[in-house]
Amino acid sequence: MTQKLIFTNLVGEALDTLVADLGNPQVFVLADSNTAECVMPALVEQSKAAAGARKIVIKAGEIHKDLDNVQAVWNALHEAGATRGAVIINVGGGVVTDLGGFAAATFKRGMRVINVPTTLLGAVDASVGGKTGINFNGYKNEIGTFTEPEASIISTGFFVTLPQQQLLSGYAEMLKHALLENRDELSKLLNYSVVYPMFNPDTLLPLIESTVHTKARIVDADFRETGIRKALNLGHTAGHAFESLAMKRQSPIAHGFAVAQGLVISLVLSHLKLGFPSDVLHTFAAYVRTNYNAFSFTCDDYPELLAYMAADKKNTQPGAVAFTLLADVGDVRVDQQLTDDEIRSALDIYRDLMGI
Amino acid sequence: MTQKLIFTNLVGEALDTLVADLGNPQVFVLADSNTAECVMPALVEQSKAAAGARKIVIKAGEIHKDLDNVQAVWNALHEAGATRGAVIINVGGGVVTDLGGFAAATFKRGMRVINVPTTLLGAVDASVGGKTGINFNGYKNEIGTFTEPEASIISTGFFVTLPQQQLLSGYAEMLKHALLENRDELSKLLNYSVVYPMFNPDTLLPLIESTVHTKARIVDADFRETGIRKALNLGHTAGHAFESLAMKRQSPIAHGFAVAQGLVISLVLSHLKLGFPSDVLHTFAAYVRTNYNAFSFTCDDYPELLAYMAADKKNTQPGAVAFTLLADVGDVRVDQQLTDDEIRSALDIYRDLMGI
Repeated sequence: MTQKLIFTNLVGEALDTLVADLGNPQVFVLADSNTAECVMPALVEQSKAAAGARKIVIKAGEIHKDLDNVQAVWNALHEAGATRGAVIINVGGGVVTDLGGFAAATFKRGMRVINVPTTLLGAVDASVGGKTGINFNGYKNEIGTFTEPEASIISTGFFVTLPQQQLLSGYAEMLKHALLENRDELSKLLNYSVVYPMFNPDTLLPLIESTVHTKARIVDADFRETGIRKALNLGHTAGHAFESLAMKRQSPIAHGFAVAQGLVISLVLSHLKLGFPSDVLHTFAAYVRTNYNAFSFTCDDYPELLAYMAADKKNTQPGAVAFTLLADVGDVRVDQQLTDDEIRSALDIYRDLMGI
Repeated sequence: MTQKLIFTNLVGEALDTLVADLGNPQVFVLADSNTAECVMPALVEQSKAAAGARKIVIKAGEIHKDLDNVQAVWNALHEAGATRGAVIINVGGGVVTDLGGFAAATFKRGMRVINVPTTLLGAVDASVGGKTGINFNGYKNEIGTFTEPEASIISTGFFVTLPQQQLLSGYAEMLKHALLENRDELSKLLNYSVVYPMFNPDTLLPLIESTVHTKARIVDADFRETGIRKALNLGHTAGHAFESLAMKRQSPIAHGFAVAQGLVISLVLSHLKLGFPSDVLHTFAAYVRTNYNAFSFTCDDYPELLAYMAADKKNTQPGAVAFTLLADVGDVRVDQQLTDDEIRSALDIYRDLMGI
């Protein structure tokens, strides 16, 4: 990885230092209409670079993560005479950092980027890995590049105004990273809670730092996602299936909530197939049940859940569902092919563990 | 450079070997409507991979090197269920390889690409360097990436049907590369002519091979064009000014014809500023005069030519015009700041040398 990761709640100071290190180039700040209103005034007060920058504001929401909005950014850059040496600071959640990253990666064949994530999911997930992208014709991240920013400034001060559900959703990705790391990391996270009264920005920041380094280590080993990067798919095959089922029931659930349930399924399968330790499985399932509740379904839903898993875009062999599993905490096995019967057993055990 | 450069007139055979080496993935062929008609039938006959590929045909011409055409390619890839592992073969001139390269670099964050240039300019210039791009809002290559193809297959068989003017235009870039290399290379090119009766595909191919390697060497040293890659700008500052003046006179000249004249200007300036050898300058100017004629202008045109040079996008210091010059053949000096008086003198000497 060549990008700098800076963990601090003195965001303005960090930003000004970074911009100075880049030779004080022309600076742009990209935000969506929500962040422009709620976050930018404070940032402008803390940072000379942000105060002096030209602002580009795009429409908020996943639905606007599209080519129209990218063209709006390209036009704004062009009209301001942006050169290849300019830097764009993306301030926002995943939509802004993904879209802003794509616009910057392609404007004059690549401007420089600093990301300032303002959501927990953005901080732990989108900040590392160099994935930029937009949706195209209704398909998520169909168009994009692998382009790392110069730096990401990861902070927790913005999170105090986030809804509890959003914090929990981001925390599920942290749990995933800890499962990929080791038992110490996992214990730290399972002994913490990202909701009040335990949550505060200063205690959360070091936990984010460890899990981001786990992700950075995995991404470094496989930038273009041909092998071990699939580790980061842990919990997502079943998670996406739960998300799709919830969507069909017209009561959608947040991505992280689905991932938390998916992680339980993946640990059950890991136990069945690879002897993943039963005590860790039980502790983990109890944590998810307490903090995220269970996702409710019956055996009548099994065929549909299996169909969603079979359609997962990460599958490589027709007719088999490929999972990322663990032989132990931190001991990752990608491309584990599972039969429908094995998955049915795991769904049975999940319902048992979660009391549904 | 990681891309393979294959110099051969057995294009079909080379293509099939490459596709097999890539693990026989899903194959797409991209061509514009002209090439689809004139080149594809022969290619399909010679290559199993091309014959079995899905064809994507875009509108021909620089005016269609735009986002609409990129979206057409993305849609075609999407509808055919293209994965990140698929390969797209761009068959055509610079418009097709630039646009197809950009579409591929951004579809699912990057498919694999094989370029098959069908013009001399494409073979010597666009095939190496990893520049992909499209025009945006009337600005050339405003949007794009630096992304290398897996391989380029460089051949000369397609050129037998090209107009003589196009061949000469491409040959000007070869002359530039030879000036950046050494006297031997330059002699070889000055003793050759890319028009009949001397031109034939088999004698041209090895000459292309040397000059492409010169470009590859320079690009390798500076992929993102921050320093020595500016060597490739030799002749282009004055060349672009001639192009602009010709456009304004409503009698446009081909890019390579303008570059040939620009190379003479840059050698005159190199002689004045850096003692570039006078005998080489005279031999080179005579070759350009014989093969490309002179570009006609008077001292009344000087202010306009100077203004065009000052507006060149490669300038970094306001108020000064930066040229790439040579102290000798192969001895490159980038970022040479020149005064208006020096440029006026060079324009005087050019007119003298070229007999206008």
